[in-house]
Amino acid sequence: MNEIRVFSPATVANVNCGFDVLGFALDGLGDEMVLRKVPQKGITITRIEGADLPYEAKENVVGVAGLAMIEALDLDFGFEIEIYKNIRLGSGVGSSAASAAGIVFGINQFLEKPLTNLELTAFGMKGEAVASGNEHADNVAPCIYGGFTLITGYEPLKIVSLPVPEELYVTIIHPHITIKTKEARAILPKEVSLQNAIKQTGNLAGLIAGLYEADYELIGNSTQDFLVEPYRKNLIPDFDFYKVTALKNGGLAFGISGSGPSMFTLSKGKENAGNVELALKEALKTKNMESDSYVSPVSKHGNRILEQN
Amino acid sequence: MNEIRVFSPATVANVNCGFDVLGFALDGLGDEMVLRKVPQKGITITRIEGADLPYEAKENVVGVAGLAMIEALDLDFGFEIEIYKNIRLGSGVGSSAASAAGIVFGINQFLEKPLTNLELTAFGMKGEAVASGNEHADNVAPCIYGGFTLITGYEPLKIVSLPVPEELYVTIIHPHITIKTKEARAILPKEVSLQNAIKQTGNLAGLIAGLYEADYELIGNSTQDFLVEPYRKNLIPDFDFYKVTALKNGGLAFGISGSGPSMFTLSKGKENAGNVELALKEALKTKNMESDSYVSPVSKHGNRILEQN
Repeated sequence: MNEIRVFSPATVANVNCGFDVLGFALDGLGDEMVLRKVPQKGITITRIEGADLPYEAKENVVGVAGLAMIEALDLDFGFEIEIYKNIRLGSGVGSSAASAAGIVFGINQFLEKPLTNLELTAFGMKGEAVASGNEHADNVAPCIYGGFTLITGYEPLKIVSLPVPEELYVTIIHPHITIKTKEARAILPKEVSLQNAIKQTGNLAGLIAGLYEADYELIGNSTQDFLVEPYRKNLIPDFDFYKVTALKNGGLAFGISGSGPSMFTLSKGKENAGNVELALKEALKTKNMESDSYVSPVSKHGNRILEQN
Repeated sequence: MNEIRVFSPATVANVNCGFDVLGFALDGLGDEMVLRKVPQKGITITRIEGADLPYEAKENVVGVAGLAMIEALDLDFGFEIEIYKNIRLGSGVGSSAASAAGIVFGINQFLEKPLTNLELTAFGMKGEAVASGNEHADNVAPCIYGGFTLITGYEPLKIVSLPVPEELYVTIIHPHITIKTKEARAILPKEVSLQNAIKQTGNLAGLIAGLYEADYELIGNSTQDFLVEPYRKNLIPDFDFYKVTALKNGGLAFGISGSGPSMFTLSKGKENAGNVELALKEALKTKNMESDSYVSPVSKHGNRILEQN
């Protein structure tokens, strides 16, 4: 095998009450990447489409994650990389994580002793850090593992793969505004009430149980976010209006995807997810807000191989 | 059926990172209660052994929970009750909840249309309020449902029954000191750091996943309590010493049971739980602290019928 084309899905991090610990993978929206094995060591990016990103490997998420893996494993070969971005930068559905996860997943296909998903996530985080300033696994982990992932620790990194109820669909709406991750961090309080912290733990526990039980009502009832959304929603004009719209039109849960500006809705079944999409597009239109939208099952799969030669 | 003897188990509430939302039932330690159906309405307490508690129904946990149920259902009969307390009052393993849950479970056996566990829990909470000053389900719910219970909401009351890994054992050690629930509440801060709140949500999520996966390592790694234990442990002299002892001797997780003073250790297997018990008894002895101790599987069953005539 000399060449491989990889799909790397968009992901939703946080999922409201799962702030900083939970994420899930989409299907249908994602980046593609071609890896060509070459004798010279290192990473050479030969093509980038869909985004204005640096070709210099050490400045590019793909390059940094790939080089970290190549150097750690002391590989005596390297790769030419073509990057086809479909996930818009800064849209809040894991664009940089898709780049980081895609390259490490891709390189892994060329190894005699492939790494585990956990090891791949750790390398992917090196790339993610280039884009976001710190190593975190919120988006990288679901991108690699697929489904829902729970990060239960960083030292050492510990990730739990959670079950995905069959009929769980997600609607993504991406309003064309810009939110800087830094700003989204800065708006959060340093302290929260113990009462709200306890409510949040109960909600996340309910959401986890809901995923295991495939109990859609429990999932819907457990996603209220007492700690983060009350602050971050102020960065998205008319957030409450969109939330009410989504929940009125068949959505189980609605919230900010990652640090925004995209918003996600979880629904039971494709039809509900489609109804939510239509209603939200209409709602954004009444506010003169340009947007993109997507409907997808919550994907059980993360990165996957599209072609190989 | 005219007479029934009911077993009502001791319970552990909070379970560290599950503060105010999680609890589980023990086996082997619990109260007994005899209910005798009589033509006159209401509750008459005819005997109390093992504790100095009021015979006046309206002042007794058993009476209040029972009367709430009898009145709500408009029953045209009543009960004579004998109470045999084995769970020490104020020991932190759900003594009042066992009384409250026992009576509502018992009355339910005499109904043509028995109530659900959720309905019973709501009545049990009325009794619990007599003892603790507020209606909460932390101990009542596991007492009635058995196993681990998660309270995901109070308005309306919503309880999720969680799976119990087969080999999960608990060691209870009850040092003979007194902690007032009020004092244990008062020692808690009103505000906590967002960072600790997030860590706590991740831990409880990991614990829930650990129960579903029967992943003992995950259970053990997920029970650290960032919000409550750092304060409440100061109410139990030498808490840290006992914790280290339990974890060194085979325990997966150690913490304060309810608001104390009892402490619980979760272990994989009866042998580990027994080793923990021996080590803790020894440790308390070196501190000249009198104590009782128990080893029990985490029980899948809550209240149960011992005899009926």
